[in-house]
Amino acid sequence: MVPTVEWRDGAVRILDQSRLPGAVEFLDCRDYHTVARAIKELRVRGAPAIGVTAAMGVALGAQFIQVTEYEDFAQGVLEICAHLAATRPTAVNLFWALERMKQTVARSRGKPLEDIKRGLIEESQRLLDDDIAVNKAIGRHGAELVADGHAILTHCNAGALATAGYGTALGVVRAAWEQGKKIRVLAGETRPVLQGARLTVWELMQDRIPVTLITDNMAGALMKLGRINLCVVGADRIAANGDVANKIGTYSIAVLAMAHGIPFYVAAPHSTIDLSTASGDQIQIEHRMPQEVISVFGSPPIAPVGVEVLNPAFDVTPADYVTAIITERGVVKPHELPERFRS
Amino acid sequence: MVPTVEWRDGAVRILDQSRLPGAVEFLDCRDYHTVARAIKELRVRGAPAIGVTAAMGVALGAQFIQVTEYEDFAQGVLEICAHLAATRPTAVNLFWALERMKQTVARSRGKPLEDIKRGLIEESQRLLDDDIAVNKAIGRHGAELVADGHAILTHCNAGALATAGYGTALGVVRAAWEQGKKIRVLAGETRPVLQGARLTVWELMQDRIPVTLITDNMAGALMKLGRINLCVVGADRIAANGDVANKIGTYSIAVLAMAHGIPFYVAAPHSTIDLSTASGDQIQIEHRMPQEVISVFGSPPIAPVGVEVLNPAFDVTPADYVTAIITERGVVKPHELPERFRS
Repeated sequence: MVPTVEWRDGAVRILDQSRLPGAVEFLDCRDYHTVARAIKELRVRGAPAIGVTAAMGVALGAQFIQVTEYEDFAQGVLEICAHLAATRPTAVNLFWALERMKQTVARSRGKPLEDIKRGLIEESQRLLDDDIAVNKAIGRHGAELVADGHAILTHCNAGALATAGYGTALGVVRAAWEQGKKIRVLAGETRPVLQGARLTVWELMQDRIPVTLITDNMAGALMKLGRINLCVVGADRIAANGDVANKIGTYSIAVLAMAHGIPFYVAAPHSTIDLSTASGDQIQIEHRMPQEVISVFGSPPIAPVGVEVLNPAFDVTPADYVTAIITERGVVKPHELPERFRS
Repeated sequence: MVPTVEWRDGAVRILDQSRLPGAVEFLDCRDYHTVARAIKELRVRGAPAIGVTAAMGVALGAQFIQVTEYEDFAQGVLEICAHLAATRPTAVNLFWALERMKQTVARSRGKPLEDIKRGLIEESQRLLDDDIAVNKAIGRHGAELVADGHAILTHCNAGALATAGYGTALGVVRAAWEQGKKIRVLAGETRPVLQGARLTVWELMQDRIPVTLITDNMAGALMKLGRINLCVVGADRIAANGDVANKIGTYSIAVLAMAHGIPFYVAAPHSTIDLSTASGDQIQIEHRMPQEVISVFGSPPIAPVGVEVLNPAFDVTPADYVTAIITERGVVKPHELPERFRS
């Protein structure tokens, strides 16, 4: 797999996911504004990947802060963080990663500014390496829940492309596959931006893991026909009570899964768990532009000019619908989150 | 509204729905093979519209049967009917309408063939006129279930475009609107062919009835937020036990509606009710080509070449999920169908 994001020759190199699967192209960001724009325009997306990318954006921006005093430098980093924080509101990993970068600066008071700048690059690289390790642990724990022959429904892309590598929901798939289990993934296309069709199908086909593309509205009918054994999705933010914000359509799948007695799992690292948010109704849901719904991956308009459109990018699945959350620390029931992750 | 289908200057003129909403174009079919192809290619679609169009196709084909004996003529009509019957398997109105045309021929034995040919044109016109009258009756009965201020979710297009005019599900909407009720329709876009976005939104905007376009996967989240008061959809075939075959995604909506305590209505004429099919699992579900999923209304491919795709065009909603069926004879509970429609 090509890397989702990497630090390369003094730039943040991003695989441009808005072009997949038609073209594999990279975007070399040489200033943090370009990194922010890439996040906003979904050239890089997926909660963990956004976190790592934003951290690299901070490291990049910091290199160009031309001051001599620590206070001025720290102020400059805060401004960069504020700019990157304003890109997307729902995924908490973004804010968590920016917080890590701010702490790195705070811890470094008194050091030469050049050392702090280098330290920020190292910290962002550590976030990237940690993310891959965390995903492999998630995969290991999650694979226990997957049996030979299982058909696994996933939504959106919680794969290598949504993370620094390996993936969360697709990390579970990869680990089960590596254990030799004969599985098949059903990938919901995930309107409006089609991350399921464009990204999940692409990365699974690259790894030769069997995958079938479906439209989102087929999930219920396939569950009724016994064609789906379990559901695994990622998350953009998990509240303290276990409510899960994830890509629009996730909630519908969870309700359908429960109606059919099919387990519904959420795979996510600790950085997605936000104990400071009590419940899902406090999570800010990003509403994106109508154009994403009206034109499908470059198609002519699918509805007349002037049509009113709703385009919430996420929804909230109440904890009651979540069978368990697969984390790097193990498989956790939603209501056990505070005790397991208070630290 | 422009007519969905009409007999015009010795041809069957079809509004080419595959081009909407970008272009309003008509297809003048001068032989029944062209009519059959138009049905197969979804240039005309919607169970009642398919029935009327096929009847006109029979009338058209019959004009060109060059024989002198009644038996030969009747045989020719049967062949035309067989060709038209092979276009789409799920909607029962097609077979019902062809049956009506065969009966017209059977009843006319002994008449001059020219009279029978004219009679077939008249019968197809009668089917068209009856369909509009039936839809207005459906609308009248259904409007009783709609309250001022209601937000109504519909799926696919069960509108004027799916019928000879006025619509079934959208007939209910039109009747409620004509009564002065301030309503809003939420139109699910209806992947893969986007009949909701392309057709339902188009025809409601033409009539200035408030409509909001959503992707199919938003339905659950909007129900949870209290943004949907009731669901009304059409049907392609209703079995004797009240199971309903309709556009893929209908079943998911029905399950979600029940989980949220929202009524789920099916609006359909008697010609959609197939008492000879005991239950939904006996209804043949049409599977269509992968290309419909892979390219969205002319977009570049949304998934890599060679991807495996499922594309069932319909699903079956068990009667237990159907609050009531709105017919031209009134609002009927699914299990009451046999007693109400045995005749």
